[in-house]
Amino acid sequence: MKLHGYFRSSAAYRVRIALGLKGLPYEYVPVHIAKGRQFDAPFTVMNPQSLVPVLEEDGGRLLAQSIAIIEYLEETRPGPALLPATPEARQRVRSLALLVACEIHPLNNLRVLKYLTDVLQVTEAQKLAWYTHWVATGLEALERRLAAEPETGRFCHGDLPGLADICLVPQLANARRFSVDLAPYPTLRRIDEACAVLPAFAAALPANQPDAE
Amino acid sequence: MKLHGYFRSSAAYRVRIALGLKGLPYEYVPVHIAKGRQFDAPFTVMNPQSLVPVLEEDGGRLLAQSIAIIEYLEETRPGPALLPATPEARQRVRSLALLVACEIHPLNNLRVLKYLTDVLQVTEAQKLAWYTHWVATGLEALERRLAAEPETGRFCHGDLPGLADICLVPQLANARRFSVDLAPYPTLRRIDEACAVLPAFAAALPANQPDAE
Repeated sequence: MKLHGYFRSSAAYRVRIALGLKGLPYEYVPVHIAKGRQFDAPFTVMNPQSLVPVLEEDGGRLLAQSIAIIEYLEETRPGPALLPATPEARQRVRSLALLVACEIHPLNNLRVLKYLTDVLQVTEAQKLAWYTHWVATGLEALERRLAAEPETGRFCHGDLPGLADICLVPQLANARRFSVDLAPYPTLRRIDEACAVLPAFAAALPANQPDAE
Repeated sequence: MKLHGYFRSSAAYRVRIALGLKGLPYEYVPVHIAKGRQFDAPFTVMNPQSLVPVLEEDGGRLLAQSIAIIEYLEETRPGPALLPATPEARQRVRSLALLVACEIHPLNNLRVLKYLTDVLQVTEAQKLAWYTHWVATGLEALERRLAAEPETGRFCHGDLPGLADICLVPQLANARRFSVDLAPYPTLRRIDEACAVLPAFAAALPANQPDAE
């Protein structure tokens, strides 16, 4: 398998963690997002959305959208489960994952920040305030859920890492890069630390990718 | 079951369609998003994210995040399947659904548009340009995929409606409300028309909700 990604992409980071947790080997193919390589052929043919990650299976099948990729790996590959066993627990884990993937990350990725500065010509301070506002709004809700719900364990759901942790960790890494204060989120930080010691999470770190700058 | 929603919420609209396709009866409980009722108790206790929809099961279980709700209904309720049978096909359908749910809708919901006007004080024209930019970027990619991929049928995937259509139709309804030109997306319009004649999609229309204005 080949993973077309970018070291700083939170969505690619999610898939790297999932591949690691499943113990699946893959070749990493960097796409330089900051230089706009996602808008060039052949990548645009691989993914008309011009977004990473794309997972390319050995037979050539191309898979887009990080969470849909991870659900697919869960359904087709052996290894530790990334979703829990009951529908109720899966609903919880998916809702936590989508809280990050639908409500935080889309507002803060590079293309959106570029629109703010290049088209709307907001100041650097306004851009950072935007970033911080959406991250804080989302993380606050996530902290409240994880701190209150009895299903939370060492990880977001019980004592094994899964899809919700896979989304949480890259979002926190991204927030740190923009100097967001994570002090108000003790449960998130505790789970993040529990993940950090696992080899799959460490190997997936942006700084550990071949295209890291 | 109770569905806490808002007639104009695209995410609540998705769940209304899913409940309709499954033939599941439910009580509709309006939450007036435009008036900020999602920030008041008791709703904030039900969902710390202050977002609709919330599906409340008869036993009191509260489910958040539209796509996680629909996956749960698919796993626990009989009725027509909302996801296809093979992992490959499910990956495709989920990736189409998430293209809408992660890349288009989050950038264009009310809270984001309010931030643009209230905090960044952009003009009405700038707000509409923002809206149109992200909708067009997403719909263009979706049109390219659906027009090119052989799995597309009468609906997004084959000849039965499912999760991808459930996400597409509310997004197109929303785009129409903001007068986005849908002429460049003939495949999307054709699928939208195929959905419109189905009772589950018609019943879920914003205009057909008790809180419609």
